[in-house]
Amino acid sequence: MVHQKYPELDVPARILLSTGPTNVHPRVYKAMQTPVIGYGEAAFLPVIDGISSMLAEVFQTKESLTMALSATGSGGVEAGMASLLEPGDTVVIGSYGFFCERMAEMARRQGANVIIVKGEWARSLDPQAVADELKKHKSVKLVGMVHAETSTGVSQPLEEISRLAKEHDALFVVDAVTSFGGSEVAVDRWGVDYISSGSQKCLSCPPGLAPMAVSQAALDVMGNRKQSSPSWYLDLLLIANYWGKDHVYHHTAPISSLYAIYEGLRIVLEEGLEARFQRHQRNAAALRAGLEALGLTIISDKDHRLAQITPVAIPEGVDDGKVRTRLANDFKIEISRGLGQFAGKIWRIGLMGEASTAGNLLLLLSALEEILPQEGYEVPVGAGVAAASKALASS
Amino acid sequence: MVHQKYPELDVPARILLSTGPTNVHPRVYKAMQTPVIGYGEAAFLPVIDGISSMLAEVFQTKESLTMALSATGSGGVEAGMASLLEPGDTVVIGSYGFFCERMAEMARRQGANVIIVKGEWARSLDPQAVADELKKHKSVKLVGMVHAETSTGVSQPLEEISRLAKEHDALFVVDAVTSFGGSEVAVDRWGVDYISSGSQKCLSCPPGLAPMAVSQAALDVMGNRKQSSPSWYLDLLLIANYWGKDHVYHHTAPISSLYAIYEGLRIVLEEGLEARFQRHQRNAAALRAGLEALGLTIISDKDHRLAQITPVAIPEGVDDGKVRTRLANDFKIEISRGLGQFAGKIWRIGLMGEASTAGNLLLLLSALEEILPQEGYEVPVGAGVAAASKALASS
Repeated sequence: MVHQKYPELDVPARILLSTGPTNVHPRVYKAMQTPVIGYGEAAFLPVIDGISSMLAEVFQTKESLTMALSATGSGGVEAGMASLLEPGDTVVIGSYGFFCERMAEMARRQGANVIIVKGEWARSLDPQAVADELKKHKSVKLVGMVHAETSTGVSQPLEEISRLAKEHDALFVVDAVTSFGGSEVAVDRWGVDYISSGSQKCLSCPPGLAPMAVSQAALDVMGNRKQSSPSWYLDLLLIANYWGKDHVYHHTAPISSLYAIYEGLRIVLEEGLEARFQRHQRNAAALRAGLEALGLTIISDKDHRLAQITPVAIPEGVDDGKVRTRLANDFKIEISRGLGQFAGKIWRIGLMGEASTAGNLLLLLSALEEILPQEGYEVPVGAGVAAASKALASS
Repeated sequence: MVHQKYPELDVPARILLSTGPTNVHPRVYKAMQTPVIGYGEAAFLPVIDGISSMLAEVFQTKESLTMALSATGSGGVEAGMASLLEPGDTVVIGSYGFFCERMAEMARRQGANVIIVKGEWARSLDPQAVADELKKHKSVKLVGMVHAETSTGVSQPLEEISRLAKEHDALFVVDAVTSFGGSEVAVDRWGVDYISSGSQKCLSCPPGLAPMAVSQAALDVMGNRKQSSPSWYLDLLLIANYWGKDHVYHHTAPISSLYAIYEGLRIVLEEGLEARFQRHQRNAAALRAGLEALGLTIISDKDHRLAQITPVAIPEGVDDGKVRTRLANDFKIEISRGLGQFAGKIWRIGLMGEASTAGNLLLLLSALEEILPQEGYEVPVGAGVAAASKALASS
């Protein structure tokens, strides 16, 4: 009876060339079969300590506290805002995409006075605009930026903005949900005080964990709050007590997700950061070459294109949903639709973590060569895969 | 090199007779191998809808919205407080254990005027005390209670308190982290407006998800807030949009954890709610009989003992940590220490979900018969398992 009403799970496998989640490594699935045990047991604590150490390597930090919160990527960004901000604090946030706006919304909900430095979608933000804005304010609590704007496929350079924030005694806060594990994220060198990511992008783990790094300056600000954060669950000072050497109970740690990220991080470090970043760059370059050879337009600023996400204009007359549905049904490929002001105007193609392979990008180009003409947009069939293959061979 | 520094996961299996997480069903581990796909894909949405329907059956509600939040049990309790409360609201919270205090702390952090109705740890709260307190306040936004106090092993009757809350036009909010799936939780009949639980207790899934039920009255209160909740991530109105029929994107759904709870809920419904509740009762009764036959004292109020958690006084002179370490190392059994004012004074023995079996409780009693005399506390060896077996046979 129960079986009839609620059938066994039967979910088709997909090649996940979306904005996430990405394909999970078989070793990560295997790690999730590790028996669940208590989060306070001596036998479990090496898992916590191992994750923290490996995160420090990938975040390139010796100075920050690294941990993974039981929440998705957005929960990680909010934990930073909820732990650092108090009502009335002035914050300066760069806005050049959907996730920038989300960060600003989170800061606003903390009662902060949110100053937006408005850029353009699909362009990176000029640090000068941040410098000009900072000059207008006497005291700024933090400057917040999105490193990899998933909605526009743009990578935001951070070092200069970090320097400006420091000059104004402001903390520097970064959303690295989409970049972490696929591009360089150099926390110490860039002077980042709070940065968070998600498990389901370039780490190729299931969604539900937010890796993060918190500087001592950020911890000090948290420790000196006038009143407690409105969030107990996302209060990073309390979470730090579990991840610190005393492992004090806060909330139940998400054991299986932690097994997953432990294995995911091992895989990242085995490949090597530099090799991994290059693989993401190389595959993204080949995809772009292929798309352009098909006459498609990549809408992001040429100088600041993300390797992780390639945003392509949907050709006029082509049905957004129909193409995505055919990709899913006939080719088992998932790509993402546009968000916010780009909804219905672009597709976003992800090449992240395990999904960033030559085979995947060639298959997608081949699928587009088949589908687009049938949907009323002629392309030079064969030219996409040829250009991509050429780019791969020469890189 | 990486392998040397970060070895492959090697975590010993345990019999989890702790307060959670509990042992995960093999079918749940298998479900977690289901391929991760996009949270917005048509092929994934039946999983969301199936979980929502099954949660409605277990919460015994036809009227509330049921969903599962990407956070642990405490995150679920906080989501209720963060979504319902605004600064200055008056709330009345019963306090008779560690998790009652946590609920009060969460309400306080929302800027609410928190009125505590103080009971005793390890006793249930007299509804008359709630009635007396409510009379003193003109306007109360909500009355909050913990159904199953994990720190004391006490079950709190809720119907009378719910009635009192309604009489005062207050919402009735319940923490059912430890009871849900192991004891009756009748949301509609009891008139509960917001209730949440955790995946890792009686559902025997890994930790990291908070199942919940939200009444229309609670949704109305959220919809009529003067200002937004300080939490975007835990804003239940936004989360409801994803779980509702339009499945609007909020944050990335924790795909693998959702596969796990889908299968966990199927197992609960296949066993049948009544049969499952009786199994928990029967095994708890046998455990208590065995512990008492060994001369140990169960510290919770006899009339309101939880089937899920049995709190036992640590005999004088016996070393708390030593006994727990021996149970873990020699018998692969995990039990929990005391929390808060009971730290060092009690052990808490859990019999929840998959871990609630006759074999497990007999093994624990046998282990205690072996360990306790060696740790300086004489017990009538054999009497514990005999009494438990007798209780099982007669039930």
